[in-house]
Amino acid sequence: MKLSQYLLPIIKENPAEAQIASHRLMLRAGMVRQLGAGIYNWLPLGLRVLKKIEQIVREEMDAIGSLELLMPTMQPAELWQESGRYEAYGKEMLRIVDRSERQMLFGPTAEEVVTDIFRTSCKSYKDLPKMLYNIQWKFRDEVRPRFGVMRGREFLMKDAYSFDISEEAAKETYWKYHGAYLKAFERMGLKAVPVRANTGPIGGDLSHEFHIVAKTGESALYYNDDFSYAMADEMHDPKTAPAGFKEARGIEVGHIFYFGDKYSKAMKVKVQGPDGKEIVPMMGSYGIGVSRLVGAIIEASHDENGIIWPEAVAPFKVGLINIKPGDAACDKICGEIYGKVDSCLYDDRDGSAGAKFATMDLIGLPWQIAVGPRSAANGMVELKNRRNGEKVEVSVEAALGKVI
Amino acid sequence: MKLSQYLLPIIKENPAEAQIASHRLMLRAGMVRQLGAGIYNWLPLGLRVLKKIEQIVREEMDAIGSLELLMPTMQPAELWQESGRYEAYGKEMLRIVDRSERQMLFGPTAEEVVTDIFRTSCKSYKDLPKMLYNIQWKFRDEVRPRFGVMRGREFLMKDAYSFDISEEAAKETYWKYHGAYLKAFERMGLKAVPVRANTGPIGGDLSHEFHIVAKTGESALYYNDDFSYAMADEMHDPKTAPAGFKEARGIEVGHIFYFGDKYSKAMKVKVQGPDGKEIVPMMGSYGIGVSRLVGAIIEASHDENGIIWPEAVAPFKVGLINIKPGDAACDKICGEIYGKVDSCLYDDRDGSAGAKFATMDLIGLPWQIAVGPRSAANGMVELKNRRNGEKVEVSVEAALGKVI
Repeated sequence: MKLSQYLLPIIKENPAEAQIASHRLMLRAGMVRQLGAGIYNWLPLGLRVLKKIEQIVREEMDAIGSLELLMPTMQPAELWQESGRYEAYGKEMLRIVDRSERQMLFGPTAEEVVTDIFRTSCKSYKDLPKMLYNIQWKFRDEVRPRFGVMRGREFLMKDAYSFDISEEAAKETYWKYHGAYLKAFERMGLKAVPVRANTGPIGGDLSHEFHIVAKTGESALYYNDDFSYAMADEMHDPKTAPAGFKEARGIEVGHIFYFGDKYSKAMKVKVQGPDGKEIVPMMGSYGIGVSRLVGAIIEASHDENGIIWPEAVAPFKVGLINIKPGDAACDKICGEIYGKVDSCLYDDRDGSAGAKFATMDLIGLPWQIAVGPRSAANGMVELKNRRNGEKVEVSVEAALGKVI
Repeated sequence: MKLSQYLLPIIKENPAEAQIASHRLMLRAGMVRQLGAGIYNWLPLGLRVLKKIEQIVREEMDAIGSLELLMPTMQPAELWQESGRYEAYGKEMLRIVDRSERQMLFGPTAEEVVTDIFRTSCKSYKDLPKMLYNIQWKFRDEVRPRFGVMRGREFLMKDAYSFDISEEAAKETYWKYHGAYLKAFERMGLKAVPVRANTGPIGGDLSHEFHIVAKTGESALYYNDDFSYAMADEMHDPKTAPAGFKEARGIEVGHIFYFGDKYSKAMKVKVQGPDGKEIVPMMGSYGIGVSRLVGAIIEASHDENGIIWPEAVAPFKVGLINIKPGDAACDKICGEIYGKVDSCLYDDRDGSAGAKFATMDLIGLPWQIAVGPRSAANGMVELKNRRNGEKVEVSVEAALGKVI
């Protein structure tokens, strides 16, 4: 992608409304623009990151046999009245009346809808276990939306749901999701710590939150040196944390629940068992904050100059800087590199070298290749690693060898 | 994917609520389930088709330099008040008041939002042309939602928008989209006819609809033998259609508009021209009904037994039928084929051969491979082409050669 044709509205100064690094940097790097309170447009650069995160989550869901479907944003109130949550959910639920006076809502989660799908589709114990997920925009009418996409009102969530024949089978399924979450976060370049949690309004008796360790995190975490499970089964309370554990700040990016028959019983879900008797399936639900992760990754990985993307979620792998467009050697070498690197954002615009370097540092692509007239005349370029800042002058071939 | 682990709730009888073939077949084939009036859950099989269509549209948008972004479903009323459309849009707009008494709406289209993005991001003629698109769920509160996903209320649309320096440049851009639309529909296995159209509530003086020819289409079309452009520039009116043109029924799947400065003027968009003077950009917008296309393709391609998917949008390429699970030869050959064909739905369940064949015909995968005990003992399978119904007994290798 050539920057001259891209939409990358960089902001040089720190926006006054942004209190935390990820909000500031996402605005400055032209990744998002606020449309309303807690509602964001995802500009091309931001959307690329969002889609990479979404795809990693999708692959790890598919890998454990979870099936992707898609539930609408608009849900009828009746299903929530059936589960008893319509009144209970309170003001965070965005309630809507359509032109025919039907009561609807913008789904904040989808236990009721997926349970309805299950009860009309699955009739036998042979249909179990069934693991379903979707990646869909949700709305929670937060009273104080803030921190950019970290606490927005319209946000992208992967929400999965499981149906099992017994509590034992359901808990096995629960631990499958637990493992898939650790893998997904690891693939995103994150250290995620699972923390035993309260179940809150979802209900149930077994729950874990997954936290990214970041200085700006909203929660206190207690962990041992290798972030292993040893901690993981404690509620995060300093009094109950084992001696010798360290304290850190965490950002919640996932939350999983086992809640047994809470919804299946309320919504009268039954399947026929092997002996002909009816069985009420045992359920769990499993959320990942996909849009929130974009902010959380930045909180965990940035410096004073900008974002530092882990390679797996970077919007582009390489930022290519033509220091002097119009210079024959610069244009030739840039053209060659641009033609060979698939995931490359090419700054082919006029402008000062300093501004170009600052933009590349700000948007945080893993590799920068700068092509200036003096070294270009000798077939050399400058290769920079954004994470450690190391710069080396190398041949075009050596640079390509490093980034392809 | 093994059918024993999939979610494919087939319905044997025709659902009473479905009046047209696509609605009937999408329900029967377990592709969608109604959640509310004009609101559908996309089950795994339906979602796979939706995503294939979406991806083809995305690739053709990218190919002409249109940049993907994502605008939220919830939009603030203020922007629509600015353009003057908030009152004008009428009851099809789903209006919402949030907990802080802010007036919002579920976007039925996004001219205002994208114009706001443009005016805050682009300041110079050097930023033009700019072509932006997104693939996002929209809501139009139809008074009589019907025909399944063909006239739903919550629907997936690809909507693109262009900004140019002059009318001439804008019309060049318009024809780029026109060409991209023809390519996208062709890749989906469709004959799409562009028809000169009225601009309606979007405004402007140049517009084309794209129609798929199908017996159940809602519009009358007049076309020449090769569906070439010769027709294309007539409004679809029998009186003005050239002599010798044929009449057919069409389903609208795309609509493009050139409307000049209608929104840019109302919303005070300006960029600085090469001579320092301000220029009001000229705009167009370009829609494809992504979820509607799923139904439209079925209307254009089915028979009395079910759907016949064009290969490019088929949910799976191959349906593999194990006629006798438990038979060593059948299991072995099925296992081999399943391991080698990436896009394969494998019916590994117990049940009658007749029911399995009927299911495969209903869901309409391009190829069926049936493995029965007698032919399996000789290393042979039955290969069926869903479109023309041809069946041949061939070796496993020959079947694989045909479908991989």
